[in-house]
Amino acid sequence: MKKLNLNDIQGTSPEGTKGVDFRPLLTDNVKAPNFYMRIFSISPGGHTPKHNHSWEHEVFVIEGSGKIVLKNGEEKLSPGDAVFVEPNELHQFVNSGDSVMRMICVIPKPKND
Amino acid sequence: MKKLNLNDIQGTSPEGTKGVDFRPLLTDNVKAPNFYMRIFSISPGGHTPKHNHSWEHEVFVIEGSGKIVLKNGEEKLSPGDAVFVEPNELHQFVNSGDSVMRMICVIPKPKND
Repeated sequence: MKKLNLNDIQGTSPEGTKGVDFRPLLTDNVKAPNFYMRIFSISPGGHTPKHNHSWEHEVFVIEGSGKIVLKNGEEKLSPGDAVFVEPNELHQFVNSGDSVMRMICVIPKPKND
Repeated sequence: MKKLNLNDIQGTSPEGTKGVDFRPLLTDNVKAPNFYMRIFSISPGGHTPKHNHSWEHEVFVIEGSGKIVLKNGEEKLSPGDAVFVEPNELHQFVNSGDSVMRMICVIPKPKND
């Protein structure tokens, strides 16, 4: 068993994000064999890139509110929402609320690791 | 994209648990290809089974406090903690606090699906 707290990890702001604090939680640091757990904290007005990629996302909204922007339209996000983003689907997470939106985001282990 | 809220899902109490409300979030309901996201809400004094299995857990503690009991000893759990349980490692989650402990738990997609 390995345990760490999100506050033990240095946040970064990945390319294409605005107002985003990104922290890997359970990835190669614990030799995760199949999937990687990360956490995003998005400030009000902040967002992730509008992009797509070959792997899926499984997301859980912990706190705050916002929306996911898709190719055609958008959907509101609230605490307790679980979101499945399909492989290759265009998507962007936006904090349209007035407090930090925090969400867990799990991806498959990258194949080129 | 598929979205649902944890409150839309019926909770169950899996065998061997006490005071546990278990809800699958993103599993075969969204045709998740690689890993399944679930949520456990454990009442004060409640616990999951003390058991082991061939697959790993990736856990994130959202709220409440408790501990994870292992073969040799235990570790406290608090909000913001991320826990990696190794394949085949004996483990039990226990709510030793005075409010509900809620945690996300991700597992690999079962191979016999």
